[in-house]
Order: sequence, then C-alpha cells, then structure tokens
Amino acid sequence: MKNYLLTPGPTPVPLEALEAMARPIIHHRTPQFQEILKEVEENLKYVFQTKNPVLILSSSGTGAMEGVVASLLSPGDKAIVVRGGKFGERWGELCAAYGIEFIPVDVEWGKALDPQAIKKILEKEGSKVKGVYVTLCETSTGVATDIEKIAEITKDYESVLVVDAISALGAVPLKTDEWGIDVVVSGSQKGLMIPPGLAFVSLSEKAWKLAEKSTLPKFYFNLKAYKKSVEKNDTPYTPAVNLVIGLREALKLIKEEGIENLINRHRKNSKAVREAVKALGLELFAPDAYSEAVTAVRVPEGVDGGKLVKTMRDKYGVAIAGGQAQLKGKIFRIATMGYITADDLKKGFETLETVLLELGYNFEKGVGIKTLEKNLV
Amino acid sequence: MKNYLLTPGPTPVPLEALEAMARPIIHHRTPQFQEILKEVEENLKYVFQTKNPVLILSSSGTGAMEGVVASLLSPGDKAIVVRGGKFGERWGELCAAYGIEFIPVDVEWGKALDPQAIKKILEKEGSKVKGVYVTLCETSTGVATDIEKIAEITKDYESVLVVDAISALGAVPLKTDEWGIDVVVSGSQKGLMIPPGLAFVSLSEKAWKLAEKSTLPKFYFNLKAYKKSVEKNDTPYTPAVNLVIGLREALKLIKEEGIENLINRHRKNSKAVREAVKALGLELFAPDAYSEAVTAVRVPEGVDGGKLVKTMRDKYGVAIAGGQAQLKGKIFRIATMGYITADDLKKGFETLETVLLELGYNFEKGVGIKTLEKNLV
Repeated sequence: MKNYLLTPGPTPVPLEALEAMARPIIHHRTPQFQEILKEVEENLKYVFQTKNPVLILSSSGTGAMEGVVASLLSPGDKAIVVRGGKFGERWGELCAAYGIEFIPVDVEWGKALDPQAIKKILEKEGSKVKGVYVTLCETSTGVATDIEKIAEITKDYESVLVVDAISALGAVPLKTDEWGIDVVVSGSQKGLMIPPGLAFVSLSEKAWKLAEKSTLPKFYFNLKAYKKSVEKNDTPYTPAVNLVIGLREALKLIKEEGIENLINRHRKNSKAVREAVKALGLELFAPDAYSEAVTAVRVPEGVDGGKLVKTMRDKYGVAIAGGQAQLKGKIFRIATMGYITADDLKKGFETLETVLLELGYNFEKGVGIKTLEKNLV
Repeated sequence: MKNYLLTPGPTPVPLEALEAMARPIIHHRTPQFQEILKEVEENLKYVFQTKNPVLILSSSGTGAMEGVVASLLSPGDKAIVVRGGKFGERWGELCAAYGIEFIPVDVEWGKALDPQAIKKILEKEGSKVKGVYVTLCETSTGVATDIEKIAEITKDYESVLVVDAISALGAVPLKTDEWGIDVVVSGSQKGLMIPPGLAFVSLSEKAWKLAEKSTLPKFYFNLKAYKKSVEKNDTPYTPAVNLVIGLREALKLIKEEGIENLINRHRKNSKAVREAVKALGLELFAPDAYSEAVTAVRVPEGVDGGKLVKTMRDKYGVAIAGGQAQLKGKIFRIATMGYITADDLKKGFETLETVLLELGYNFEKGVGIKTLEKNLV
C-alpha cells in the first residue's frame, strides 16, 4: 500500500532529499561539509527572509524554543506568553521550567489573538517584560496569528518578539526583517520538507543584545555558541550531518520555486481544503483565523474521530492528524505544507469521503473532491 | 574518488541503514513507528548490557551529557569530574554551566586514571558528592578508563557513576549492569554506525532516585519525560524519525554479529593498528591506556600534522582525525569503531604510508601494512 502523509509534520520528503541523505556520510569538520553548511545557511536566510544568520541546531523544534528562552532571559525577567493551543502552552512550560514569571495571554483554542492584549500588558509592565513569545501557526488548532501587527507593537518596547514558526515557515507569510520580528524559530519536518531532527533560529541585533546579558543556565542550547560557529560555517557540537545534506536539496527546490510562489501555493491549496471541507457540510475549527499550513476540521456528530484517523491511515494509507490534548477525538487536521502536492490532497479527500461514508456521515459523494479540484493550484 | 572514513565519529554507515533512512518518512505518533521504537529500545538494551530502559534523545551526544547533569543534580550538590581530554573537560563545563561545584581529577592527556583518586575524594567529601562523571573512551586522546574499578568504588557511596560511552559503546568492553554503572551515555555516529543526531542514556534505579530529587532547570533534556514516554514506546518530543529507522538496521547487524564478537573484533583491529603504527617507527600517544575504539599517534618530528590529515583526505579520500585543542598538529587519530572494516584499515595504512613518505618521514615501505594484515581480524 502506498502511503500518503497529510500530517502537520513530518511532511513528505522529496526524493532529491531522500537520495542525498542516503549517500555515504562525510565528516563534519572538513572544508567539504563547511561548503554545504555555507550554502544551507544562505538559503535558510532566504526562506527566513532575514539578513541575520540562521543558526542550525540538532534537535526537535522544542529544543530551539528552549534555546530562545534560556539564551535570552535572566532570573527576574518577565515574559508574555500567548497560549491558544498546545504549542503556545509550551512557551509557558518552558518559562516555568526556567523560573521565569510569565504573563499568559490565553486565547480560546481556535480563535484569533487580538494584538492589543499584548500592548496593554507591555504598557503596564514596561521594561520588566523582556520577551513576547507567540506562535505563528498553532499546529494543534490550525490558527495563524497576526505577527505583523504584534511586531508593530513590540518594536516600541524593550521586549523582543519571539515567534514559533515551526509549522509555519515556508507556508504562512512571514517577513522577518521587514516586519521587525526579533526571533524566529523553525524545524526541519514541516515546510522545509526533510525528516525531523534539525531546528533553526534567527535573531535580530536587539535579540543578540538581550542574549549578551542572559544568565539562565544553558549549554547545548546556548545560542551564543552557535553564533560564534556560524561565522565560520561550523557548528559547536556534532551536527546531524545527513539531515543537513538532505536540507540542502530541499532548500534548492524552495529557491527554484521562489518564496512568493511557495507561499501562494500554500494559500491556494489551504483555501481549496477549506472550501472542500465546507462543501462536505463539515465545520472548520478556526473559520476566522485559519492558517495556510494546516486546516483543523470539527469531527461531525455521530462520527468517532479516532476511528476516522485510524481507518484512513491503516486501511487506506492516508495519514492525517487527529486532535491533541483537549481536542482529542473532536477535530482532525489536514496539512497543506511543504511537499504535500495537489495530488496528495486529492487522494486525501477521496479517502476522507470514503471513510466518512463508512462511518455513517452523509453527504453527496464527490462534492468534496469536486470543490477541492476547482480550487487547487 | 571513493572516500574512506577512519574518523572517530561519524563512522561509515552500513548500506542497510542508508537504504532504510532513504525510505519515505512515516509519522511518529503511529503504531507503525511505535513498533520500530520498541525493537530499537530492546536492541539498545542488548548493546548497553542493561535491563534498564535506554532513552533515545534527538541531539548530539553532548545533549545527553547535559541531560545527565541537569536531570540528576540540584543546587548545592557536588560532582567529581575526571578530565583527561576534551570530552572529560566537557563534563566540567556542563557542571559549571549549571552552577554545580565540581572537584576535578585532572589526568595528564594520554595517561590512565588511577581509580583510587576518586576513592580519596569520596572518602573526604562523603554524601555531598552526588555524581562521578567519567569518560570511557576519551575520543580526543584515545585513552580508555578502567570503569569496572571505578564502579567498585562508587557502589559504596551515595554518588552515582556517570559514564560517557559516546565513542566507546560497542567497541570498548562495558558491562553496565554487571559492573554496577549507574548511567551510560552514548551517541549514534560511533559504534552504533548511523549518522549523528541521536543520543542515548540508560539509568539505574539509584540514578532514577537521584533524578526524582533534582531541581536544576531543564526541559528538552529532562530525562524524566523520556522515562514516562519510553514505557509507552513513545518520545516526549518529535524524534529524528529516519535516524531511528536507520538505527534499527544497524542494531540488527550488531545483534547478528553478537556483542562478544563485536568487542573482540574491535580488540583485534585496534591491536593491529597499534602494532602497525609501531612497525612504522611511530609513537603511540597513549601506549599504556589505549582504547579499542580509536588510536592516537604522535606526529613524527619534521612532519606537518595538519598537512598529513589534509593530504590523506583531499588527495587520497581517506579521512582520519587530527588532534584537538592542545594536541592540534601533534597527534593524528585512526578509529577502529563501528563499520570500519579490515579493508578500510588496509586502505588507511596504505595511504598513511604513501603520505608519510611524501612528507619526508622515512621507514621501510610496506612494513606498516604487512604488520597490520598479520594482526587484523
């Protein structure tokens, strides 16, 4: 059975990257590998839309999130944490792990954040707040946050703006330097199309100044060590060599397509998914704050959400994601990010229709696919 | 040009593992991946020679080293750190990063540790010392430490014994449970034969009890989270999926060979390297404390050590390692670990002889290879 991956990470890996990762391994402290790192670092800047170096960490995205808490803050600093899903909550857990007092901005899961909520806190707390931690695309709910507006607010304060773009980079619009975002975190297994195991961080000058003063304990995720290394196209610790080599190929594909085309493709494909979902009579979980990377859909009444995901995967080879935490069984999620093509989405909706019918949900067969096809790139 | 990797990590990756890593990626929160994790975890226990769970972290070995500092210790605890090379020093740097006072046991680089030095400190400091941090094979010098003797000492104290076996596991004898070692740390790109990006930790009951009380800040490297997950064949954060899948193949090869045969092969091949080095009139850097994983050799007078390594690699495609830190240019290192075969070593010595002659070092051509072949498995 051929398997289709429509999950919000890992996403399908292009053959070019799979092939490159299967080549005999090379040593990382060599001019040969430094040349690869240099190319990868340049192309990451292109995708991050920044002139600042993009640091490469060998860890999951969570490791990089830890790095931008432990490397930027100091005991006594305060943080603002936007929590509208599982990954927003992670920012809070990270602050708590390091004894950083954080002011939560709790947003109902599936709803959009009002950026003014951040302004109010910054006005009140002033320079005690050193970091505003937000999520661009909340993978657990499919909600995108208006980062551009938040950046307009934070630029007038001492605090840096830290954006988790793990499942958003290369899918959701994000203009790091143009919008004035201080810190962007991402991971390898989403829009960047390679397997999990690498994470990335870009930091502005304002963020590096904060990092200079940071006294929280850290070692592997001490971003200052990565900054020193990146200047020599090197890494402080042994990197995940073959993932970096795979990433080189994936980044070549992104550059060939062009960042604007890439974002447009995600915009159109995610719109096609939303329209198809509605045509099936299903309800979007976040109708007003959807993202271009992943779409969350309410499981219709009478259907077992867990069984839907399991049947699609185990009987038909199509992996979509269920709900996490409080949304378990209540939503399912279809990703449109990275190397997920129009054909993959067609196969996904064919299977979704088949399984929804099997599970007793009624609709006019074919109406989902027809609507999808009309809207796809 | 075909490339040969005789470096102490990364080591060559078997084709079986390369092929497995190039398969289309699968999602990690599925019964399919859990089954793989279960097999990998079982086989890791076999290689670690322990009945305790072996935790799988997505990071370099240094990340796991950080995990066993931050997850075991608390402010006010003391540690003993054996420093006989770059990686022993890393234990000290890690303790310092977390504000842990450590008592260094400094061993001249290239020399063996006298385990009694540890006993003396434990006698004096008593229960204030919570961890003894040592390196089984110090990759930077090729020295192996007598862990069995140290474990005999630590078992009578409150302190746990933590062993960095990153470049030693599967090459240097290490009987975790039989010898009573509390914590063993390893990495993927040495004896385990896959690319870098995964790290491993096993902990004894005594170590888990210490972990329960630990209050140092941590998140991604909080081993308690991994313990909870490993019981369900899961991971707390997105794992490096394709490296785990590659590891499954590498572990199958190890099980087929058998751990005793594996260790014997390393013993014989490393002895062959030492004999061949001596036949060439070269001096071993650590004649009395060599390891089965990597052999360090003094660069003979009149030869440029950097040029030796560079010429072998760039002109002949044979990668060996130079010296690190204070040994830069003064030694070169030939690994015998993992998938480095007898043929690889022959090619390595052929090239070493060729380049030594090119660089003006005199010896009877062929005497190195002849001696090597006589002693190889």
